Parts: sequence; structure tokens; C-alpha cells
Amino acid sequence: MTLYVNLAELLGSRIENGFYRPGDRLPSVRALSVEHGVSLSTVQQAYRVLEDNGLAAPKPKSGYFVSVSRKAPALPAVGRPVQRPVDISQWDQVLDLIRVAPLEAVTQLGRGMPDVTSPTLKPLMRALSQLSRHQDMPGLYYDNIYGVRRLREQIARLMLDSGCNLTANDLIITNGCHEALSASVRAICSPGDIVAVDSPSFFGAMQTLKGVGMKAMEIPTDPLTGISLEALELALEQWPIKVIQLTPNCNNPLGYVMPEARKRALLTLAQRFDVAIIEDDVYGDLAYNYPRPRTIKSFDEDGRVLLCSSFSKTLAPGLRIGWVAPGRYLEQVLHMKYIGTGSTAPQPQLAIADFIEGGHYEPHVRRMRTQYQRSRDQMIDWVMRYFPEGTRASRPQGGFMLWVELSEGFDTLRLNRALLGKGVQIAVGSIFSASGKYRNCMRMNFATKSSREIESAVRIVGETIALLNAQTD
Amino acid sequence: MTLYVNLAELLGSRIENGFYRPGDRLPSVRALSVEHGVSLSTVQQAYRVLEDNGLAAPKPKSGYFVSVSRKAPALPAVGRPVQRPVDISQWDQVLDLIRVAPLEAVTQLGRGMPDVTSPTLKPLMRALSQLSRHQDMPGLYYDNIYGVRRLREQIARLMLDSGCNLTANDLIITNGCHEALSASVRAICSPGDIVAVDSPSFFGAMQTLKGVGMKAMEIPTDPLTGISLEALELALEQWPIKVIQLTPNCNNPLGYVMPEARKRALLTLAQRFDVAIIEDDVYGDLAYNYPRPRTIKSFDEDGRVLLCSSFSKTLAPGLRIGWVAPGRYLEQVLHMKYIGTGSTAPQPQLAIADFIEGGHYEPHVRRMRTQYQRSRDQMIDWVMRYFPEGTRASRPQGGFMLWVELSEGFDTLRLNRALLGKGVQIAVGSIFSASGKYRNCMRMNFATKSSREIESAVRIVGETIALLNAQTD
Repeated sequence: MTLYVNLAELLGSRIENGFYRPGDRLPSVRALSVEHGVSLSTVQQAYRVLEDNGLAAPKPKSGYFVSVSRKAPALPAVGRPVQRPVDISQWDQVLDLIRVAPLEAVTQLGRGMPDVTSPTLKPLMRALSQLSRHQDMPGLYYDNIYGVRRLREQIARLMLDSGCNLTANDLIITNGCHEALSASVRAICSPGDIVAVDSPSFFGAMQTLKGVGMKAMEIPTDPLTGISLEALELALEQWPIKVIQLTPNCNNPLGYVMPEARKRALLTLAQRFDVAIIEDDVYGDLAYNYPRPRTIKSFDEDGRVLLCSSFSKTLAPGLRIGWVAPGRYLEQVLHMKYIGTGSTAPQPQLAIADFIEGGHYEPHVRRMRTQYQRSRDQMIDWVMRYFPEGTRASRPQGGFMLWVELSEGFDTLRLNRALLGKGVQIAVGSIFSASGKYRNCMRMNFATKSSREIESAVRIVGETIALLNAQTD
Repeated sequence: MTLYVNLAELLGSRIENGFYRPGDRLPSVRALSVEHGVSLSTVQQAYRVLEDNGLAAPKPKSGYFVSVSRKAPALPAVGRPVQRPVDISQWDQVLDLIRVAPLEAVTQLGRGMPDVTSPTLKPLMRALSQLSRHQDMPGLYYDNIYGVRRLREQIARLMLDSGCNLTANDLIITNGCHEALSASVRAICSPGDIVAVDSPSFFGAMQTLKGVGMKAMEIPTDPLTGISLEALELALEQWPIKVIQLTPNCNNPLGYVMPEARKRALLTLAQRFDVAIIEDDVYGDLAYNYPRPRTIKSFDEDGRVLLCSSFSKTLAPGLRIGWVAPGRYLEQVLHMKYIGTGSTAPQPQLAIADFIEGGHYEPHVRRMRTQYQRSRDQMIDWVMRYFPEGTRASRPQGGFMLWVELSEGFDTLRLNRALLGKGVQIAVGSIFSASGKYRNCMRMNFATKSSREIESAVRIVGETIALLNAQTD
């Protein structure tokens, strides 16, 4: 593991164990540099990780202090997935989650649904409505297969924030990030190929691999810094891996932002073993820290990174508008996109282009980032209040998902069944593993503004866990 | 070939050769029955084929007469595709066709675009616009993966017209018919599998096969009665064919409606060899004769037919709303649909459901059928006027596509290049064959109401053909 990550973890565990207390001044950069025999910049990087994770905060000219913020639960353990490529299972569990219709009388803590009730979205509704008023609306026609050019231009502009210097011609519009991922996988892989994935990993992306008959090689992933580069390197040495597929920014489900140095190191690995990277950046614009984190794509020099994203998390998933920047694989991805669905509906594309051109995107995303960060803190508080002691939880740096780890042996599949009659649904942990690991984990959505209804749902989940624990004892 | 088809062809060729003249009374059913040693019902079936093709018309109590309608060009020859499974090529040519953006200063005779300017579509615009006015619009949310239930219920009702007795639960909504086809193929086939297709065949469906690494076995297809059952039977005997994929109603590109008896016979063949049928019915509601023709699916008893369709030809392609009735393959198709794109955008689904529930669908389709039939006659007239003598053309029984066959050796790829600077585009014939056959053919769209602009475009195509012929001579 890199030196600064090591150091950040050491300091982090000292803070979490109460060795340093909230408000305490932390050792100076110089002192730590001497104590651990590392460079000043290594210490600074370590502090930045602590800062990103809300454990420490700098005070001008006084050094770093332990955040006085609320106490946080312990982090989930690093996963121990099977150390070989496996077939992807779990479709039945995924289906259970996604076949539920929206707005039913169930508090959906399981779905990847953002909050779409913010007034900052109003100009988007207006654009959608106005576009439909005239019969010569371009929304009725086939668009060209790359997607609406005006939208691609705006996306290219937005992507500058993540360090990507692209033009409209580098982009293909898709039916959500889902199609971006599946067209990318199909463009590169053949059945039987092995794909390295972070673990836990977004179940939709994994099912996409399954659909092409591919095997997943799950790589252990740290809940603060992301996929283990050491384990990945080992896997690349041992297996003919074709692609690395991961979500480095505001990871789903763990919420971490992979440090920049590790992103670069991962790209170097990919170059050394000549594999492609499918990078899912769908939550990237929702990182709590500004400016938003860079993508791996932004460091890519030989076009091996296929960046997949969408407006499903930043605006609204029902629009089904995503995109892919496929680098050197553009022609193949275009073909796979055509094969899958032909072209993409123009009306929502035009409405989103209007929305961004009108200057409404940035204020909206800014507002959502603040809201989500606040609800994260609230959700963590509730989990600590209502869930059994010893419950572990992620410390999301962006997005609106919390990963919760219960005691070993607990079965969230059983939990979800028990919750069925109580009007709450969570996402069971096992769908985030190709081989059904993480049965004692679950993912909870905190996008909705904190409310009594959400609090009550979290309480019900906590009580049901306690009930199941009591039954087992 | 079936007896009645034989007889219909004989009578048809006599009409076309001028043996029977427009307005002539044709031999009585009884006389033909005796002359050819076939049953009365066989003769009646033959006359129905002639009627469907506009060659003959019954007068009450007086028998059949040669239609006084305009003279028609000779039919295209039955194709002679390669008699073995082949890899699908032609992607570059398809890309040339589809990468053109709509509404550019080119008369698009090549695209599969319906006329979307009819005032009968106005309630659809209204629905789309109204749905977007409220922020709690369900269009922003993920829908359940099967698609909006209200729309599925309406589609099931509409499908009664084609003889299908289905419920909402038998249907999955897709991103256009394109996704219905690709999810169906993926649900059934593995790479290397062989699929029998009509020939010429819709290029989009064929590229879909290519995307899954499948081989196409092109079956000779009659321009009046569809896929040759004899050739198909032979192919089924010789090759391990997995699926038959075809468009029996208002075929794209040939425009025929496969006679009902042949649909039944095809299903029997599929049962005997235990293969699935992917039936594309996307133009079915646009058959000129009322009631609309039945689907093969309507005769299906053991769920082996996957019916794929959409609103792209009846309403507007830009909505990207299609569906599939996958029979016994429902679970697999659902999985493949999820893998490809997740769920489908709810807003256009809800708008279409409103449109159908409001009673606007039937009047709209009725109007379009009449318009398309009229423009077909006009387009055929123009082709006869402006194209070189000896030009052959299909006799579409529905939809808005004309298939034109030029003299052997003519190259429509060259034609399209020559047309590039003249503001007209046609669809080259070679993309309708897996192996690049039909280079001397092309498909022309007659959806737009006859206008000077269209006439001028057809004239330019005719003149350019003459020019190229002169260069070759």
C-alpha cells in the first residue's frame, strides 16, 4: 500500500479509537515526517485523505485538528472476495430490487434514486414541456446515432471540471449510464473474458458483464481509498484480464473518492498490462468537496479509458440520458450502441441541453451536494441510534448511498423479507458481489431530505435487525 | 410452393403481360378450379392474393375483374442469397445511412421515417407537454423494469386486432423495436448460432445479429408472398438453425403481407424443427387493408414466437418506445433488457398511454394508412415516369417503403455517392443482405405527402441513374 495511505489509515484509526479526541490538535506535518521517516508531501497527502473523510480539518497557520463533527461508526472491513474469476450470479436478487414500481407505498431505501423534488430542477420541466408544444418538435424524429450535438457540446464543457479535455465528437449519448456500460463491455470483450471489478461493486454493471457471458474477478477494495492496487496487480499477473471496471469517484456502494495518486497508479498498471478501463463516473459531480475529483479518464493519454456517466443521479433517472467517452474504442462502442437500441430519444436530450445552456446545471448540483452531505450525516446518526452496537458504516464523500455492515453471519436477504410487510426496502449486500458475498451488508439511500418518514424507516430497519438477531441467539 | 400461390402468380403474370387488360372480367372461380384441377377454395385464396396486391377486384355477384388502377412495374426478382450461413457485413454502409442528422438539407428517401406532421398526432404532443408541467411527474423516476403498466394494458388491447390474446404481464416495454429485437436475440442465441432471415431483410435487425456474433442464413423471399417455405425447410434440414427472424406483415423492405396460410405453415415448420421465431410487426398496423393482418404470434400455442414491435412507424420514432411479447422467453428477455439499458423512460410511455386511452390511436392510424396507400401509388407512378425502362418495383401492401430493382450490374452505392451533392439520399440495397447482395436495388421512403419536393427528388434519382448508365455504356 502506498505510504500516505498507510499513514492516513494509522492516524484515522487513532482518531476513531479516541486516541485523538474531537477538537484535538494533530501532530504537525514535520513531526510526523520525522516520526515515520516519510517525506513532508507524503504526510500532507495523508492529511488530505483524513480531510476528505471528514476526520480532520486544517486551521489556517495552526495545522490539522480532529474534526469536532459527530462521532462516526467504524468503517466496514475490506472485503475478501474469492481470489479467482467467477461467474456472476444474483440476478434473482437484483430483479427483486428493480421490479418494484416507484411511488408505491414503500420507503425505498434500496434504489439508486436521487431527490428530484428540488426547485432547481424546474427549468428542466419547463424545457421538456415547451419542447413538446410544437408539432415540428425534433423530439419526434430519429436523431443521428451519436446523439444531439448541442447536448454533447455541453457535456464536453461540464467534463472539463473533472479534468477531461474532450469535444462533442468524442462522446456518444446513451440510454442512461447503463447502456454506456453495456455498450462499452460489448465493444471490448468476448464471452468468457475476465473483467476485474472493485468489490463491492454496482450490481447493474456486474449484471451487464453477466449478459455478455463474462467472468468477474473481484478485487478487495478499501472503504476509504478504493480498489487495492496490490491485489489488482497480482490479479493482472495471474489472469488474462481484459478490462478493469470500477467507480473511483463517490463509489457505489462505498462512497469513497479514490485519491488522485492512486488513480494515476491504476492507469499505469492498466498500461503495463495493456488492459482497458471502464470508469463509471455517474456520481462524480455529486462529490461533497469542490472542485470535484478528477476522473481516471482525465489522465488517460492513449485512449484506453471508456468513461461512462449519465444525468440519472444529478438530474433524474427517468430521463434515461447518459453518455460514454469511449476513447480509442469509439467506433466499436457506436456499433454496439446501434445494435442495442438504435438512436436515443431526442426530446430529453434537447431539454437537458437547454437546462445546461441556461446556466441551471451548476446551481442545481451545488444545492444537491450540500443537501446530500447533510442527509449523510443525519443518516449516519440514525444508524448509530437505531442499529445494533457494532454496526459499521461507510463514510461517503459524495452521492447519496450508505453502505452498512452488520455482524458476521447476519443475513440481509432475510432482513429484506422481514421488512416487506413493514413498508421499507433496502438493497441487500449480496447483489454487490459476483459470488454473493456481503450477505451481512446492505446499501441505504439518503437522497431524500431528512424527514420523520425516513427516520421511521431507518428505525424500523434497526428494530427488525435486532428482532432477527434475537431470534438467532 | 403452395397451390394457390402458384395460381396467383400465374394469373398475376398474365395480368402484367397484358393477357388480361384493365377492366377485363377474369375467369370464374369454378372455371379456374376445373382448368387447374384445384379446389374452389384454392382459387379463392389465389384471388385474394391478387386482390391484396391490387391486381384484381371483386364486383358483387359478377366475379373478379382486373383492376383499372394504374399500370404497375414488374416485380423484383426473388433474391438468390448465398445458400449457407454467412457472417454479417455491411456495417459501414448502414452507418453511412444512419449517421445523417434529421432535418438536414437532404431529401431523405432512405430513412425509415414516418410522416409525423399529421394533425391527428396533436393530442400526443399535448400529453407530452402536460406530463412535464408538474415536478412530481413520474417521468423523472425509474419505472419498474417491465414498463408502465397502463401502456402495457393498452398495447395488449391493440394487439387483439392482430389476433393476439395477451395481457399486460406478457409484455415488456423497450427502447424502440430495435431493443426488442436485440434483447430477443440475446435471450435465445449464443455467438456462432445460425439465424434464418427473410432476404432482403431489415438491416437493423441483421446488425443486431452481427452484434451477438451470429451468422445469418438468408432465405429467398417472394416479393408478394414472403419467405420461401420450401427453401426454409431445406435450410432447417441442413443447418442447426436456432431462430427464424422475419417481418411477415408489410415487410421491410418489400412491403408484402405474407398470406395467413403461409404464416401457419411457417409456424408448423418452426414447431417441427423446434426453433423460435422472432417476428417483427413494426409496420403491421399500417397495412392498407382493414382489418389488419394477423401476426404469426396470434397462431402461436407454445410460446415460441417473440413478437417485437413499436410506435416508431405508427406514431413517431423519436419517442423510442417499443415492446416485446416474448412468450416462453419472458424471463430471459427481461434480463437482457435490464442488462442493455435498465428501465425505459416513463414520460413518453405515459403520453402514449394517454393518447391511446383518449381514443386517438385508431383514427390516427386509419388516416396514415390511407395517406400511405395514396403516396405509394404516386411514388410508383413517379418511378415509372422518371426511372429507366425495365425498372422493377415492389407492390407494398402497407407501410411506406418501396423496394426498387435496377438493371443487373447497376451499383446503388455509386448512385448514393453521386446523389450526395444533389441533396437526395436513398437506402442502398446491399445493407438488406448479410452478404452484400442486392447492390442493384434500393429502398425509397414514400411517407411524406406527395409534394413537388419529393417528385423532384425522385426525378433527380432517376436522372442520376440514367447518367450512371450512360457512363457505363
